[in-house]
Amino acid sequence: MPNPTAAMLVIGDEILSGRTRDANMHHLAGELTAVGVDLREVRVVSDDRPAIIAAVRALSDGHDHVFTSGGIGPTHDDITADCIAAAFERPIDVRDDARALLQAHYDASGKELNAARLRMARIPDGAMLIDNPVSVAPGFTLGNVHVMAGVPSVFQAMVASILPAMTGGAPLQSRTLPLMQGEGDVAARLTAFAEQHSDLSVGSYPFQKDGQYGTNLVLRGSDIAQLDSALLALKKVFSA
Amino acid sequence: MPNPTAAMLVIGDEILSGRTRDANMHHLAGELTAVGVDLREVRVVSDDRPAIIAAVRALSDGHDHVFTSGGIGPTHDDITADCIAAAFERPIDVRDDARALLQAHYDASGKELNAARLRMARIPDGAMLIDNPVSVAPGFTLGNVHVMAGVPSVFQAMVASILPAMTGGAPLQSRTLPLMQGEGDVAARLTAFAEQHSDLSVGSYPFQKDGQYGTNLVLRGSDIAQLDSALLALKKVFSA
Repeated sequence: MPNPTAAMLVIGDEILSGRTRDANMHHLAGELTAVGVDLREVRVVSDDRPAIIAAVRALSDGHDHVFTSGGIGPTHDDITADCIAAAFERPIDVRDDARALLQAHYDASGKELNAARLRMARIPDGAMLIDNPVSVAPGFTLGNVHVMAGVPSVFQAMVASILPAMTGGAPLQSRTLPLMQGEGDVAARLTAFAEQHSDLSVGSYPFQKDGQYGTNLVLRGSDIAQLDSALLALKKVFSA
Repeated sequence: MPNPTAAMLVIGDEILSGRTRDANMHHLAGELTAVGVDLREVRVVSDDRPAIIAAVRALSDGHDHVFTSGGIGPTHDDITADCIAAAFERPIDVRDDARALLQAHYDASGKELNAARLRMARIPDGAMLIDNPVSVAPGFTLGNVHVMAGVPSVFQAMVASILPAMTGGAPLQSRTLPLMQGEGDVAARLTAFAEQHSDLSVGSYPFQKDGQYGTNLVLRGSDIAQLDSALLALKKVFSA
């Protein structure tokens, strides 16, 4: 059987103007090659509704899978979700499951789920949410199009969330432990933990907050009970 | 008057497989932004004839300029020139002016202009050559499509060759002084030289040869006599 084929659509004026250098294409290319999916084409378009809709339709028709990167944040120029809905002629609105994820996150951090942030809960009818263990706001899969964030650490976490199911494995769930310590400070203990839990996927995603380095430790697996118990063990290791 | 628009087409399996990380998109994006040309779209396709031809036609129809990167070397999978000719329905063959450039280069370096290298002189009828001060084998412009090499130092040198004419300036000529010294060793003297010759564009392009670092020093200007005299002065500075 020939390998499944894939295309990628990178959305964002900041790439085309040269302000930001895209890192997601190279990451996705390597991940797909590793699991035997042929990345055949990449397109980069600006934050322009007709351009996004036309590219989504062309790539969705021509390939088994399409991965998009960018344009799903809280600002006015984040129009990817609405464009995907339009490309597939589906209604789109704030969806309860996505709103609940954001509500719990902002309640816990003492911030307001304002109108701008609520935009990130706009999900087309019939889409499946993609887990975001780094910053909560979900991606989604509609038809053969997987819609993900442009921030590289979030994009990478979302790719890790969906790849196993795409290649015939069970969908993965995740548990996240945020720490205000840099990756270098947690690496040795995390490596030891990963060796003791070789039946789980153990990842780390660095971030900066208020000028300090932090790391999200992410456990992934298909068994919820096992994940919850591993998260307790992880908290003990880091006394969190 | 609105800015001219541009698209880029990156050609190469090595990018899509994740083996190589593309550097040319980010470079071109920054250069075009600096001169007021709007890069609207980038596509990356594999070394596949129908895919290249379809992308060239679509991008050429939709934008004022198209820049391609990759697929113009000496090996069998370097099919860009033939695909561009096919996209515009032009004949293509080894062209005398391109062959003469390569012949002089390989004669000087004591290497044979064999059949593989001669492929790099295949130029579509009606195209204009693009100067390659780094490694001689030329790019070309056909219609509104500028065909350039994928190797980043060569791509960057070719972009520098064509941008001034695109934005209304006089076409630039170049003179090159190859040195077997690293960029760090030549930088101070080159900076001083550039300050004394502020009416010329002075560039440096590092390379490796037989395990040693080298640098091509490139002078660009529109006045040939001035260039030749500046090259003599440059040789004196570096005792070359």
